[in-house]
Amino acid sequence: MSAYKLLLLPGDGIGPEISAEAEKVIAFLGQAGVAKFEIERGLVGGAAYDAHKVAISEDDMKLAHAADAVLLAAVGGPKWDGVPYAVRPEAGLLRLRKDLALFANLRPAICYPALADASSLKRELVDGLDIMIVRELTGGVYFGEPKEIVTLENGEKRAVDTQVYTTHEIERIGRVAFELARKRGNKVTSSDKANVMRSGYLWREVITALHKREYADVQLEHMLADALGMQLVRWPKQFDVIVTDNLFGDMLSDEAAMLTGSLGMLPSASLGAADANGSRKAMYEPCHGSAPDIAGKGIANPIAMIGSLGMAMRYSFDNAKAADAIDAAIANVLAKGLRTIDIKGDAPSSISTAQMGDAIVAEL
Amino acid sequence: MSAYKLLLLPGDGIGPEISAEAEKVIAFLGQAGVAKFEIERGLVGGAAYDAHKVAISEDDMKLAHAADAVLLAAVGGPKWDGVPYAVRPEAGLLRLRKDLALFANLRPAICYPALADASSLKRELVDGLDIMIVRELTGGVYFGEPKEIVTLENGEKRAVDTQVYTTHEIERIGRVAFELARKRGNKVTSSDKANVMRSGYLWREVITALHKREYADVQLEHMLADALGMQLVRWPKQFDVIVTDNLFGDMLSDEAAMLTGSLGMLPSASLGAADANGSRKAMYEPCHGSAPDIAGKGIANPIAMIGSLGMAMRYSFDNAKAADAIDAAIANVLAKGLRTIDIKGDAPSSISTAQMGDAIVAEL
Ligand SMILES: CC(C)[C@H](C(=O)O)[C@@H](O)C(=O)O
Ligand SMILES: CC(C)[C@H](C(=O)O)[C@@H](O)C(=O)O
Repeated sequence: MSAYKLLLLPGDGIGPEISAEAEKVIAFLGQAGVAKFEIERGLVGGAAYDAHKVAISEDDMKLAHAADAVLLAAVGGPKWDGVPYAVRPEAGLLRLRKDLALFANLRPAICYPALADASSLKRELVDGLDIMIVRELTGGVYFGEPKEIVTLENGEKRAVDTQVYTTHEIERIGRVAFELARKRGNKVTSSDKANVMRSGYLWREVITALHKREYADVQLEHMLADALGMQLVRWPKQFDVIVTDNLFGDMLSDEAAMLTGSLGMLPSASLGAADANGSRKAMYEPCHGSAPDIAGKGIANPIAMIGSLGMAMRYSFDNAKAADAIDAAIANVLAKGLRTIDIKGDAPSSISTAQMGDAIVAEL
Repeated sequence: MSAYKLLLLPGDGIGPEISAEAEKVIAFLGQAGVAKFEIERGLVGGAAYDAHKVAISEDDMKLAHAADAVLLAAVGGPKWDGVPYAVRPEAGLLRLRKDLALFANLRPAICYPALADASSLKRELVDGLDIMIVRELTGGVYFGEPKEIVTLENGEKRAVDTQVYTTHEIERIGRVAFELARKRGNKVTSSDKANVMRSGYLWREVITALHKREYADVQLEHMLADALGMQLVRWPKQFDVIVTDNLFGDMLSDEAAMLTGSLGMLPSASLGAADANGSRKAMYEPCHGSAPDIAGKGIANPIAMIGSLGMAMRYSFDNAKAADAIDAAIANVLAKGLRTIDIKGDAPSSISTAQMGDAIVAEL
């Protein structure tokens, strides 16, 4: 059995705590002979800034390039509010996405039945919810040039960001969405602001053509991004796979995650293109942030982080069995009523980050 | 009493139907001696395209410039999906906003107590909700240049939209938000993606400085747009006034409107700068769209349209009494259990567009 090269980037805030729990699962999988891992560790975000005055070091970028998969916990926090823009914590995350060419961000929005009451939506609207949001991750307004602030002659400042998309960028993310849909509910909702943005107009044109040419068996609908944001609230179960650009994907995936009432539970995968051997660069991270307000208290929910390791087993290490086992272990501890404080609800008591990690390992 | 010059633009879909009900209220206000109106009528959107092959004619633009206020119902529909981009229905709306320099879009998200159960959110989360979203309306990615699709040498297409904001554009919309907050809950939440966008970075800088300089008495918080989209779902009542850019405002105001369960009830105002006499250009429109699927059936809800007339009385015609009377009439018909089909819920029956209009006039 060849070893999987995994780079761990715990990052900031609750990152190190939840990362430690994922390591327990990694250790278990190793001992149980399910998989062999070669683990590297690095710094990203505020942690990298504190150590090296950068958002991620060149050495750690090399490790990221060499890894089969990166497992990142979270970056950012008020501590670094004043650092120069180019080295703010988020810059580390953005560089990883861009340099590793991780164009496809998969964000499942699943509502765990045991947690349906935690949603602010009425139970019947979210119980059993299972959406896959496919967000384009290396283009759009996140990376387009010019991207700058200039001072005008009259002393005013003028800030510019540029949203750019080309045919092949839209096509390749569209393909990811259609392929996923075929294995799920066979329906894709593509979202844009074609009525206002030229990039949205091209987006719709390219997705429509790709659908007609290669994926006519999949049901396709187009929905304006503002309307989709509304429909998510009104009736989320109408969706199967949603494909959209970097910025709309940022907004809509967070909204969908919050709807489930299971934000602390949701993992994500960011994937590159497959090479000749069928292997691809990949990064896995929780959908939630670094939660600086509860960092260091040992109460953070490690489930999204452990679920991200599960996604790595599925998408990078081709080990659906291990991935399914992790998902089942998570569902089981929840069904048993084990709760960290964020999902406590009406439960009589809550457990710590470490207890949740241990419980999941015990299930495995 | 001098006459108010009002331009009516019924537009497309259900627009003409709901516009007719607003006209009943206008006629009533005239007969009752509350206000005198000089009414003009024009075409916008698909209706203008069908008549003149443009999204709004130069003649109607002249009427808009001459009017004290424009009352627009809705534009767009699948009928015009194939028309050239420059003359698509939305272009008429965007031209009105831009040419009249209506930079401040006020979108209240109110939950009518009588309708709290219509929300997909749990009742306690939305009952009594009252948020004011202040959206910048003439800048950002909607209007920035370049805005184009070009064909590259390799045959691919490349689409570009440009998000631009300058200091004074941010300042003037910030001022609107702070002024409104002083008359309400005294709290402003400013939203951007300062962690990713240079325009968001400038936005935050300018709002912060303006606050410090002129509005230190108002509570200010900054929230990333993706986080705000989540918090709206989780706990909407934490917000009072939200100020944000054109695109985020588009998304977030629609999400907030849907949360209330009262989408068909929500009006909006788009205001320009006050001139030397304190008067300003203005346009009023429902938050909902043209609903082509129910157009012509006489079942659309005219409340948002009539509420928009109410906002015109308040913000353009300085007649808070008439505005309050309209708002009260709407609340009363709802309290009496009168419902159009969109808000029927568990009610035993629903009434038509015209019946709802008549009921509101009767209340007045
Ligand atoms: C941290 C931030 C740069 C990032 C983004 O905007 O993409 C985050 O919100 C996300 O969704 O992964
Ligand atoms: C119709 C469309 C151009 C418009 C917008 O995007 O601004 C609408 O969604 C709105 O919010 O008023």
